[in-house]
Amino acid sequence: MREVFQAELRELQDGLVQIAELVASSIDKATRAFNESNVTLAEETIGDDDRIDGLALKLDELAITILARQNPVARDLRIVVSALRISASLERMGDMAAHIAQLARYRFPDKVVPKSLRPTFAEMGRLDVEIAHMLAELLRTQDVELAETIRNEDDKVDALHLAVFDKVLGETWKGGTVDTVDATLASRYHERFADHAVSISKKVQYLATGDWVPES
Amino acid sequence: MREVFQAELRELQDGLVQIAELVASSIDKATRAFNESNVTLAEETIGDDDRIDGLALKLDELAITILARQNPVARDLRIVVSALRISASLERMGDMAAHIAQLARYRFPDKVVPKSLRPTFAEMGRLDVEIAHMLAELLRTQDVELAETIRNEDDKVDALHLAVFDKVLGETWKGGTVDTVDATLASRYHERFADHAVSISKKVQYLATGDWVPES
Repeated sequence: MREVFQAELRELQDGLVQIAELVASSIDKATRAFNESNVTLAEETIGDDDRIDGLALKLDELAITILARQNPVARDLRIVVSALRISASLERMGDMAAHIAQLARYRFPDKVVPKSLRPTFAEMGRLDVEIAHMLAELLRTQDVELAETIRNEDDKVDALHLAVFDKVLGETWKGGTVDTVDATLASRYHERFADHAVSISKKVQYLATGDWVPES
Repeated sequence: MREVFQAELRELQDGLVQIAELVASSIDKATRAFNESNVTLAEETIGDDDRIDGLALKLDELAITILARQNPVARDLRIVVSALRISASLERMGDMAAHIAQLARYRFPDKVVPKSLRPTFAEMGRLDVEIAHMLAELLRTQDVELAETIRNEDDKVDALHLAVFDKVLGETWKGGTVDTVDATLASRYHERFADHAVSISKKVQYLATGDWVPES
């Protein structure tokens, strides 16, 4: 029974890694679609979101089957419950990538944000992509140092999120209302994307070390 | 054992109802804080959010204890897993109310949105408050007709969310950039609040009837 259980836990973990990798590829496409105004990549990202939703649903069913069959307790139980929560957060990260891609698609063939904000969004996108790759790696290796790095990267995303507002609300902002709306939403989506990654990495860290890092 | 289990399920349900009632009171305060530029109510809403987070955490621990002790299967297991998910969504609804209150606090003593948008936000707020009360009632009574009503009310919130963008992006919009940013964020928070309510009511409906209503 224990061996079956270990194999099932491994299957759960592999499933989470698979979804995280798809999320990483999805935010990468979304960021390029956004920066380069590439409608094909935008469509792909939106399609990826359906795949992510489907995989998350499958993973949840696996977790529920494990709970029913194995009656895990203590740490084992927390692993399975965490898998359910992690899949929900990954699913939301896929949504955020799709939302960013949708902005690119709406504005096509125009670019979403005016020139003055493009470096900021390029950097936010780069950080989100990096965070997503580190998250997949963290789920694969349980290397908790990655959790720390993800939190630091998230701080940078938060700072850029504030920088977007500083720019948009500053006196030199030349964008129209549509630019303001798009920049506000896109920045929020990037920020939420990184937040979800932090929330997942705290769960992994907790499972790996038993040290609870309170949600901030 | 079965009796203990039923009592524990009842405790879970009572916990969800309690959180939902607090969320309803919180969105009510947030909406008034926002409309009336009332900083005291804004502070209260932000304080409520901490209480909601604490109650959600307690409820999750109860659900995990039930899973460990009772090894529920089939429908019973799905009830407990759903409670975990519902508490996560309620917790997010509390976050949205707090975000709306924060906008009111940032802009105090100014009002958050210009006159032309106030009726739209007043109506969005009214609908979100109504939805939150219906959600608490649905969790208490499992009356699935309420799930249907919540979905209809959410459609109205979605329509108002689009109406905000129509107004902001229309030719008659006289608001400054700060008004555009605030209206965009506030509208998004209201829309997400109602979305979470729909997602919860689908879960309750599924548990009550066994009919799966796919996430849209």
